[in-house]
Amino acid sequence: MDFNVTILGSNSAAPAHGRNQTSQLVNWGKHTFLVDCGESTQFQLRKFKIKYSKIDHIFISHLHGDHYLGLMGLISTYHLNNRKSPLYIYGPMGLDEIITIQLKYSGIALKYPLIFNPTQQTGKNQLLDLTGLNIYSFPLKHRIPCTGFSFEEKSNRVKLKKEMVLKYKPGIEAIRTLLREQDVKNMKGEIIFKKEDFCQVKSPRKYAYCSDTIFDREIVNHIARADLLYHESTFMESERERASITWHSTTTDAATIGKIAQVKQLLLGHYSVRYFDLSPLLEEAKKTFAPAMLSEEGKTYVIH
Amino acid sequence: MDFNVTILGSNSAAPAHGRNQTSQLVNWGKHTFLVDCGESTQFQLRKFKIKYSKIDHIFISHLHGDHYLGLMGLISTYHLNNRKSPLYIYGPMGLDEIITIQLKYSGIALKYPLIFNPTQQTGKNQLLDLTGLNIYSFPLKHRIPCTGFSFEEKSNRVKLKKEMVLKYKPGIEAIRTLLREQDVKNMKGEIIFKKEDFCQVKSPRKYAYCSDTIFDREIVNHIARADLLYHESTFMESERERASITWHSTTTDAATIGKIAQVKQLLLGHYSVRYFDLSPLLEEAKKTFAPAMLSEEGKTYVIH
Repeated sequence: MDFNVTILGSNSAAPAHGRNQTSQLVNWGKHTFLVDCGESTQFQLRKFKIKYSKIDHIFISHLHGDHYLGLMGLISTYHLNNRKSPLYIYGPMGLDEIITIQLKYSGIALKYPLIFNPTQQTGKNQLLDLTGLNIYSFPLKHRIPCTGFSFEEKSNRVKLKKEMVLKYKPGIEAIRTLLREQDVKNMKGEIIFKKEDFCQVKSPRKYAYCSDTIFDREIVNHIARADLLYHESTFMESERERASITWHSTTTDAATIGKIAQVKQLLLGHYSVRYFDLSPLLEEAKKTFAPAMLSEEGKTYVIH
Repeated sequence: MDFNVTILGSNSAAPAHGRNQTSQLVNWGKHTFLVDCGESTQFQLRKFKIKYSKIDHIFISHLHGDHYLGLMGLISTYHLNNRKSPLYIYGPMGLDEIITIQLKYSGIALKYPLIFNPTQQTGKNQLLDLTGLNIYSFPLKHRIPCTGFSFEEKSNRVKLKKEMVLKYKPGIEAIRTLLREQDVKNMKGEIIFKKEDFCQVKSPRKYAYCSDTIFDREIVNHIARADLLYHESTFMESERERASITWHSTTTDAATIGKIAQVKQLLLGHYSVRYFDLSPLLEEAKKTFAPAMLSEEGKTYVIH
């Protein structure tokens, strides 16, 4: 099952240096989720040749323009493209009002159902319960109501060892039993195929997304042991005061959170327009947490 | 005095073939006016290296997303850039509500005054009275309330013939008199410098903008004898039925209006996403009205 993140926009506040405002795709199996939707997201989807009709669920962290101003354009394009399938939007209260008022004045009665689900500002809340995947929101500390999102596989991933299957040729029933991580027994109750011999078991994967936030230890519970954490790193340490005033994080903040939460890999992003060259941000983060990476537009990060 | 139009976006409905949604700059002397503001307008302003802090007046024809969805991003970027000077916005009722609600939920108290002026849906109305230039709105016929805009110089443009000034060296007072298109007389009331000898007089120029509209003879009064007319031409004649259903014009509609209104030049635009190659649209328009041109993004069209 593929599980990865494609970055569409990596900048904060305003576009600069060819970088766009925040938006990314989380791909899990046949599902594609859009997470935040800054202005020009539909341009980026086109640029990277992404079939965006397959997006059914859009998650908006908060109502600062750089995280949602591309949404109305996308809603409108879906309408023009005769979309029929429902579009589910998850975001803070108020987003529904913003969408509704714009549809009203544009005189558009959407050709597809648009279902809005408000996110809560306290606790970890389940937004979506799919076969094999849960999606949650959890609160972030920013100037206005803001949540992060986590994408959590429900169960272990079991793969059969090919050479063992070819050698012992267990029947379909036996394979099903092994894939449930159970030993295969005969009528007498004797083990004939041991799960350990046949199965490669990997633990469920988790991706956590923290869009805009100050350094906040309280999020650690929600993102703990994620296989990949995206955590904003708007500023370098030299701009710590500015980060504090604007309720943003530094590269060291992001790296420290990644370290405390024991995540496997850290993806930096939401870069300030003041940075043309991003390599100093990466270097600074790596001093605290080596598995840090820069998020780059058009690039896909695999979640192992 | 420079008077020209720079195209930022030339497409309709959705971005396609590298073309953006409707937006253009009208430059008159030291003034730069933004006319419509589709999604990604701020990206286009950056791309074409336009100093957009000098825009003080923004004119929005109607509330279909492809004409205004870039506005909130621009308003927000001005705020982040510490703009202090007022920003005047002219557009249909409802636009103020759309802006206000988004500012409310984003928690932004703008650092500069934003002054909204609603456009009227009947008659020609003066929106702005500058020294030397009037700007008007006038109604267009579209699915929702929509206006065009005209930019009309107030008076003749008088230039002195350089060779005559060098030869006869009239004093400053005499030059001022000549620039007012008056003869210069001596104490006895005798003409010493004839205005015809010294002055080159050009009539006031006019630019008219018709964003989204069906073919409508009623607009001719408002755009008559414009030096440049921008008139939407979403479709070719082969899509006449589609044009009618969607309240848009064909290339022939635009060309016919230009011909009836006796404009000097016609600028086509608002192209349907179905057209990759635009030359057939130009050819079709030229059959009815030879001085037709395609609007192309990044290109500036001088108003003579």
